[in-house]
Amino acid sequence: MMKVAILGATGYVGAELVRLLYRHPKVQLTHLSSHSYQSESYSKVYPHFKGLVEEVCIEDDLNKIDADVLFIALPHGFASKIVTPALLQKTKVIDMGADFRISKEAYDNWYQVEHFGEELLEEAIYGLSEWNREKIKSAQLIANPGCYVTCSLLSLIPLVKEKVIDLESIIIDAKSGVTGAGRGLSIGSHYTECNESIKAYGLTTHRHTPEIEEKLLCFGGENVTLTFTPHLVPMNRGILATIYGKLKAGVTNEHIMHIYKKYYKDEKFIRLLGDTAVAETRWVKGSNFCDISFKVDERTGRVIIVSALDNMIKGAAGQAVQNMNLMMGWQEDLGLEDAPIFPA
Amino acid sequence: MMKVAILGATGYVGAELVRLLYRHPKVQLTHLSSHSYQSESYSKVYPHFKGLVEEVCIEDDLNKIDADVLFIALPHGFASKIVTPALLQKTKVIDMGADFRISKEAYDNWYQVEHFGEELLEEAIYGLSEWNREKIKSAQLIANPGCYVTCSLLSLIPLVKEKVIDLESIIIDAKSGVTGAGRGLSIGSHYTECNESIKAYGLTTHRHTPEIEEKLLCFGGENVTLTFTPHLVPMNRGILATIYGKLKAGVTNEHIMHIYKKYYKDEKFIRLLGDTAVAETRWVKGSNFCDISFKVDERTGRVIIVSALDNMIKGAAGQAVQNMNLMMGWQEDLGLEDAPIFPA
Amino acid sequence: MMKVAILGATGYVGAELVRLLYRHPKVQLTHLSSHSYQSESYSKVYPHFKGLVEEVCIEDDLNKIDADVLFIALPHGFASKIVTPALLQKTKVIDMGADFRISKEAYDNWYQVEHFGEELLEEAIYGLSEWNREKIKSAQLIANPGCYVTCSLLSLIPLVKEKVIDLESIIIDAKSGVTGAGRGLSIGSHYTECNESIKAYGLTTHRHTPEIEEKLLCFGGENVTLTFTPHLVPMNRGILATIYGKLKAGVTNEHIMHIYKKYYKDEKFIRLLGDTAVAETRWVKGSNFCDISFKVDERTGRVIIVSALDNMIKGAAGQAVQNMNLMMGWQEDLGLEDAPIFPA
Amino acid sequence: MMKVAILGATGYVGAELVRLLYRHPKVQLTHLSSHSYQSESYSKVYPHFKGLVEEVCIEDDLNKIDADVLFIALPHGFASKIVTPALLQKTKVIDMGADFRISKEAYDNWYQVEHFGEELLEEAIYGLSEWNREKIKSAQLIANPGCYVTCSLLSLIPLVKEKVIDLESIIIDAKSGVTGAGRGLSIGSHYTECNESIKAYGLTTHRHTPEIEEKLLCFGGENVTLTFTPHLVPMNRGILATIYGKLKAGVTNEHIMHIYKKYYKDEKFIRLLGDTAVAETRWVKGSNFCDISFKVDERTGRVIIVSALDNMIKGAAGQAVQNMNLMMGWQEDLGLEDAPIFPA
Repeated sequence: MMKVAILGATGYVGAELVRLLYRHPKVQLTHLSSHSYQSESYSKVYPHFKGLVEEVCIEDDLNKIDADVLFIALPHGFASKIVTPALLQKTKVIDMGADFRISKEAYDNWYQVEHFGEELLEEAIYGLSEWNREKIKSAQLIANPGCYVTCSLLSLIPLVKEKVIDLESIIIDAKSGVTGAGRGLSIGSHYTECNESIKAYGLTTHRHTPEIEEKLLCFGGENVTLTFTPHLVPMNRGILATIYGKLKAGVTNEHIMHIYKKYYKDEKFIRLLGDTAVAETRWVKGSNFCDISFKVDERTGRVIIVSALDNMIKGAAGQAVQNMNLMMGWQEDLGLEDAPIFPA
Repeated sequence: MMKVAILGATGYVGAELVRLLYRHPKVQLTHLSSHSYQSESYSKVYPHFKGLVEEVCIEDDLNKIDADVLFIALPHGFASKIVTPALLQKTKVIDMGADFRISKEAYDNWYQVEHFGEELLEEAIYGLSEWNREKIKSAQLIANPGCYVTCSLLSLIPLVKEKVIDLESIIIDAKSGVTGAGRGLSIGSHYTECNESIKAYGLTTHRHTPEIEEKLLCFGGENVTLTFTPHLVPMNRGILATIYGKLKAGVTNEHIMHIYKKYYKDEKFIRLLGDTAVAETRWVKGSNFCDISFKVDERTGRVIIVSALDNMIKGAAGQAVQNMNLMMGWQEDLGLEDAPIFPA
Repeated sequence: MMKVAILGATGYVGAELVRLLYRHPKVQLTHLSSHSYQSESYSKVYPHFKGLVEEVCIEDDLNKIDADVLFIALPHGFASKIVTPALLQKTKVIDMGADFRISKEAYDNWYQVEHFGEELLEEAIYGLSEWNREKIKSAQLIANPGCYVTCSLLSLIPLVKEKVIDLESIIIDAKSGVTGAGRGLSIGSHYTECNESIKAYGLTTHRHTPEIEEKLLCFGGENVTLTFTPHLVPMNRGILATIYGKLKAGVTNEHIMHIYKKYYKDEKFIRLLGDTAVAETRWVKGSNFCDISFKVDERTGRVIIVSALDNMIKGAAGQAVQNMNLMMGWQEDLGLEDAPIFPA
Repeated sequence: MMKVAILGATGYVGAELVRLLYRHPKVQLTHLSSHSYQSESYSKVYPHFKGLVEEVCIEDDLNKIDADVLFIALPHGFASKIVTPALLQKTKVIDMGADFRISKEAYDNWYQVEHFGEELLEEAIYGLSEWNREKIKSAQLIANPGCYVTCSLLSLIPLVKEKVIDLESIIIDAKSGVTGAGRGLSIGSHYTECNESIKAYGLTTHRHTPEIEEKLLCFGGENVTLTFTPHLVPMNRGILATIYGKLKAGVTNEHIMHIYKKYYKDEKFIRLLGDTAVAETRWVKGSNFCDISFKVDERTGRVIIVSALDNMIKGAAGQAVQNMNLMMGWQEDLGLEDAPIFPA
């Protein structure tokens, strides 16, 4: 069994990693660290793990951790301080945060936090599993993508790469469940403040925007400037992205489907619904799937792509496990075989 | 007291009309008709009215109804069969459905139901209160706008009319609570099928599309072909419209605010939030308000408008009461003075 | 217009008082105080009041407040420090908190907070409107009952008073929406921690227990020791109390109904559903009603009472307004005429 | 691989069986029958299974089904018509419905449906896994318990059996998510009718009452007449049972814990929380666990037991799989190893 540690195990992403890794046949959870709950039993912090994960949380101190793979699930700004070349020589690192996802320039512009790990940015491999598989296999440091970003990129890269979409026309109107906001207390995540209401936030300024744009260039080969608007939906889990783009003249439903099949027909975790069914978050909840559907609107010349994933799984912990499997040379879906759970 | 009747009083729109009219100081509810519940006590169908509205539902038969104002809250296709010139000579009619909202051509194309009231289409006045006030005042037949449409039009007409927005670029990504789907049973409105999930529906084919386009021409003076995508959100009430449009060069936040103020600064039921706050459905729930906010994105040259209303009130029964007040020469906000109710 | 001030106007109870008083025809809101938001515009704290209540919050300082009626909506322990005989000489006070509700002995035992206003406990009148109307009319200081307590007492007093129920047998299993927990941030009110789950809390120790017992003695004339178990339900508003009691031999449904009618048949805000319909929170939401239903179980000799109210209205702000109306000699339902709002 | 068929595979219980059996390492789903959806692809009825379960639904005809184990997930009244001695000679049957759970007398009294399978009632083994393990191992026909019943019995049998509880005093106040009402359309399960509200139903007449009483006699050895009140909670999954009982004199928390440990300390799927933590449905969602907590109230001499399970898993499909494992001589938790999923 391979030894795995999680830095920041008591946030929601950390807990979802614990849940997935608990059942993974080839790993053993050896260290769970927590700033807020150190010395407390993990199952007291998260009683659903009672009887299953009874480890005591340790402090966030890398010196106390000896692991083959280290997942870092801390707020942005932390990983870049603690990941060092020395650490990477002995441990594979999968960072769930933003520190190694984007260029230093974009990071400085959109995050307004000093970045300490600049020298490692080139070594960090972007963990969009389906598009970066070969590099992930030999990586020591993975920058695991964000939830909105994964949903957007999986939908858009094929169309951008195949040059069927007007690069100036892309709009992503995304909707997220409240787990996306984490476990930290805030008035915006207070039950009675977000229940029975929907809102947009981060208009024109959300930090996932540059991540999407940089990766469309990286994997799609094109410079794109797009609009990304996230919304908060009164539900626990799920991302739905409704994406609009102007098509080049003559592009049809069949053409779009042909493109998606070209890239995804053998991808286990991407399900193409085509132009008859429409993706909904309930059909992916609890699984590592990303469902993609679309429809060409002849009246307006646009394609409307609707895609869905579970923000905690394919949008975070699940994709991280998928990346770990790739890094270790294991079967890619190990520990990720669950069907979605519905109604849940 | 003026006598008021409601045809179709046991649907959600009918019930919301009852709630608003019950407290209206100048009207008396005299007839509540219901196809499904005739001869039952209204308060048995809707126990929240116990002790308040104890009328017995009568059948849907105009001959049994004698009223000064008649609200019709039936599925589309019914009103056009029963509203006649003779009826209009003795009764003012406010139709909550689609039959008299749009041109026969659009109706035939998008509704696929035969329209029987063609000769009255010209007489019917579109009940978008803030934009058609003078005609409403002297109308006998009002076509009350739909919920998505009201939210979209109030947001877009000023910008279209002032020619600051690229007419080919408009996308409306709208989100609705489940009351919008009515009280009729369907798998899509079954609790466990829509709770904890979000979905898009009616991609490229939703019937509110032609209504929005026709009225933008009517009130904004421009031919617009736009994309409208509705979504179902797991909450009871509320519409949020996130609207995207490319701006003409040089248009700024200040310019947009100036335009909105020009048209709305004296409108009681339209609240301009400007470019600092963002509209949320919780802030309008239970009231007749439509909140409008926006932000210009200099990176992409787009304006993003976010507007919110309560689909049952400003999007249906409230605007109908507002129109009744206008038709009767009463103060426009009579019976509509409630502040929003929060958290609710 | 009478001048009204609210101490603690930015909590949920304070905001609901603002909503109800905003439309009350005989009062004017003159001072809104807030510890957390002083100097901020009230409508910025609660954007649903934009354009309606634009006062700036002042600090919690009685010297800055000059009002005919003062509502205190602060956490327990505060009112007993600031209400003085001198204050009561010039201002009527309605305290929404626990300080003046129960005996000092019970307060010390169950609240573990020092009580400073002992000398005023006798002067304080318990504001259970339907049962203490005459004393409320001439009161200067009202202790407004809690939400669970109002629902429980209105259900139980008649049966205790008429001696049809075994005093040792009473169990109250109560369920509350999350507004009952207030606006203060806590992990227990974090959206993703209470959504899609139900829990019991305060087993055997909830502070409403002694309030219920003392008032059953006061209004029902009997010493009762009962079990009270509150639960948190994933919804914004509403209290449902399911109450169990062993009946004296031979007591029937008809007998129970007779007793309830004896006390409540002329009470506007209490609706008796009898033994055929069962109370649900949705039918009272947004109103000052308390619905009461029951059923005698011949197999077990028990009566099961199910009662419902809106915890923010009849359980807090609405009953407080009802009490203010009584104190001022106004019509008791002034400002409380709203029908429930459904679906909401 | 053993061949497994499901009669009634398109209800929620059927779908949950499919989900669990899909990942079970020793079975193969060979037949999925559906009355409503015959000839449709299963993954079209339930798109979360797209790519995973692509079988076509067949009609409900036993002659077309050849299986080692047959799960019947049909409404009550059907299984007793189709299960015959001949069928049981070739197939093990696990009935998810009520037909074989209780005595014919109780069935006739509480269900008011004719029972056709009387001769098999004695052969049917009640599938409360933890209490009937030995008989289940050699059974051909299992009557799988209901969700409310499982939660109630696991909580009560030890205390009844050990005679620490007054048999006349037991009250079960139970709360269920809406999946418990199934997928059949009804106004009571319409989203906007149950969202944001809580109600009690089936007062004094719910059909799970005699099942609980008969099994308390069977496994606890005592005749009990109790009160059972179910409630509908606005959430998808979960049962919470709050159970009240008068204790014999001198029974303490320690005594109760001792009793629970005596019976459950080695039970994998029963987690004893003791008297410090309180069970909540979120901590068991997605798993086969039943969490049990309790507190003795010295003031009233009662014990309050709070227990929780996932109604679709330990309350239905999970316990059925547990029983199948027992019947086949496999490891009891095969296919049931999932940790709960939170927040979900």
